[in-house]
Amino acid sequence: MNEKIKDILERGTEDIIGEKEIKEALQSGEKLRVKLGLDPTGTNIHLGGASQFWRLKAFQDLGHQVVFIIGDFTAKIGDASDKQEMRSNLTDEEISKNMKDYKEQISKILDIEKVEIRYNSEWFNGFDLRKLIPLAMEFTAQQMIQRRNFKERWDQEKPIGLHELLYPLLQGYDSVAINADVEIGGFDQLFNLKAGRKIQRFYKQKPQNIITSKMLYGLDGREMSTSWGNVVNINDEPKEMYGKIMSIHDDLILDYFEFCAFASYEELQKIKEDIAAERLSPRDAKADLAFRIVALYYGKKTAEEAGEYFERVFRKKESPEDVEKVKLEEGEMGIIDLLESCGMVSSRAEAKRLIVQGGVKIDQNIIKEPHAKISVKKGMIVKVGKRRFKEVT
Amino acid sequence: MNEKIKDILERGTEDIIGEKEIKEALQSGEKLRVKLGLDPTGTNIHLGGASQFWRLKAFQDLGHQVVFIIGDFTAKIGDASDKQEMRSNLTDEEISKNMKDYKEQISKILDIEKVEIRYNSEWFNGFDLRKLIPLAMEFTAQQMIQRRNFKERWDQEKPIGLHELLYPLLQGYDSVAINADVEIGGFDQLFNLKAGRKIQRFYKQKPQNIITSKMLYGLDGREMSTSWGNVVNINDEPKEMYGKIMSIHDDLILDYFEFCAFASYEELQKIKEDIAAERLSPRDAKADLAFRIVALYYGKKTAEEAGEYFERVFRKKESPEDVEKVKLEEGEMGIIDLLESCGMVSSRAEAKRLIVQGGVKIDQNIIKEPHAKISVKKGMIVKVGKRRFKEVT
Repeated sequence: MNEKIKDILERGTEDIIGEKEIKEALQSGEKLRVKLGLDPTGTNIHLGGASQFWRLKAFQDLGHQVVFIIGDFTAKIGDASDKQEMRSNLTDEEISKNMKDYKEQISKILDIEKVEIRYNSEWFNGFDLRKLIPLAMEFTAQQMIQRRNFKERWDQEKPIGLHELLYPLLQGYDSVAINADVEIGGFDQLFNLKAGRKIQRFYKQKPQNIITSKMLYGLDGREMSTSWGNVVNINDEPKEMYGKIMSIHDDLILDYFEFCAFASYEELQKIKEDIAAERLSPRDAKADLAFRIVALYYGKKTAEEAGEYFERVFRKKESPEDVEKVKLEEGEMGIIDLLESCGMVSSRAEAKRLIVQGGVKIDQNIIKEPHAKISVKKGMIVKVGKRRFKEVT
Repeated sequence: MNEKIKDILERGTEDIIGEKEIKEALQSGEKLRVKLGLDPTGTNIHLGGASQFWRLKAFQDLGHQVVFIIGDFTAKIGDASDKQEMRSNLTDEEISKNMKDYKEQISKILDIEKVEIRYNSEWFNGFDLRKLIPLAMEFTAQQMIQRRNFKERWDQEKPIGLHELLYPLLQGYDSVAINADVEIGGFDQLFNLKAGRKIQRFYKQKPQNIITSKMLYGLDGREMSTSWGNVVNINDEPKEMYGKIMSIHDDLILDYFEFCAFASYEELQKIKEDIAAERLSPRDAKADLAFRIVALYYGKKTAEEAGEYFERVFRKKESPEDVEKVKLEEGEMGIIDLLESCGMVSSRAEAKRLIVQGGVKIDQNIIKEPHAKISVKKGMIVKVGKRRFKEVT
């Protein structure tokens, strides 16, 4: 099978509905309309979200028509997919600002000029209640509440806005409006994407086929989600991106190679075997991974520099060349006072918390006692968290 | 307090919101707009439903404006109030037919010419989704499901159509559309009526006050409901109506006097005391009750005739003058064959069921054995259920 078709059908895929039909269409030369719904509430695309755009790129490379549905109307309603709480509605200005930022990032992956971009306010402004009701009749309240994130909120007795239950109907109707052949989405979108099939059938359209992506785990081992601050964004600075990827759990390495770095299937197999046979250390595998991902978004040269920087600072325990300097008198000083003097904390409470959590190092020594006295010397490196340094002069 | 005002506020009242405000308005001479929502799905008004119209009559007598909202739009959506299952939607023709029948019945109680009659399709046809969503945002899914009949269906895992959750919003918006000062409704409507207050507030209107009626128990001791066939309809034939009222449970007598017969508060007190002191037998109380109710809808003369008929047939154990005759050979006959020959059952299975349940009498004797042999004689009275007789000749 063509590598691109395999990328479309298999790479990072969680669920697929109509695999045979999609494969046949991809091989027949039929031009498919491939839908991705974008919720214009967030501005940064993280690696989990980016995998959607890479799948679309494979479609685009094979000559298919990518269609973005910008949920400018539905964004005013709120979506429960990747939040545990109710969203507030956005203004048109915020949406327009977010879309500009969004397109810039997507251009790193897709040929944005060839994408058909549709705003669903086009068909939902003035949408008649008489059209909504038959759609609502296709579903029961129970089916809606069973939907993954509603269910969690229901069980936790967190409010679910009545308007949120309408969202899957509207997202489904989007597929009717653009006559989608295929819709792709995150692992948590299966319910909404299937609602699209139901509503297309109601409108006598051929129901769309569906591909959803696996969940990508973030830096803390939970789902990668902007709300949880555990993300690698595709517009993170190269050094930051490299460092974050070096910090993932070892058991995520293969997932990241598969759907963040787009290693070939042969390479994936080899990496897997080499790690298992201890021919490749997780540390070296991650360095390769970090290099590849940074290179995808910033080119090889920048990726190399990021790699060298990381080696110097984090691995060889040298302070970086461009480390910020701070001038202090030599002599004894409380650790909290020291952090404040360096301007590395915004309050004494924060300083105390960081110390207790083990996030503060003087040279190579972790300081866990908030009352500790430090003997301040020139050349001393003060480190807070994983990537913030200052050098005393 | 004026008796009419007391009728409005107290007679058969379950819940009241804004009692003080309503009372003040009634005494000040302000002209109130009093809303009653009518669901045009049923054609027969029973005594439970009629109590709403009697309350409105009291408002009307005091010069207030009664407004009917005919839920022709919402009837196409369905309402969960007095059914345990999803309703199918009605056609315009059915609605129009039902309304004609409805008005005829209501004319027995209210001056229908003075009523403002509004169909909510007036404001809901073409109702913009952008107006619906802010209303939906005022409620959570949880609040909706807590609503009495949704809750029951939820607990019993019976489907609740997603469209049904929108119904309270629409009913609430009706109050905005007509600027209601007071809304009245059945005991099970409190949630919807309160939704109206919320939505009126959202539209910066003064929230309506609310009066709901107590539940009226039907012939079998359950809520009087057309779905359960335990109703006394206000267009029942006088003899049928009289007979049904004579069959109510003794402990319902006072309720029926209060909100079906509209006995004065003095009379209610006296009846209560007389029954307690055994100066008045439940049987005589019911005869008075049945007379009053039939008289309300058919006049005193007809009520007297119905009473005399009942006395003759049911109390003095005489067969009625106009009892239907059936010609049979004298001699032995199985009870099931006998019921079939008389044409009083539609199947042998029904005959058997009625016999086993004790619903079949030959002269004064209950026959409970389906294999019983009956010695057929001229003048014999065959009785099935409470009110069906045939005489053998």
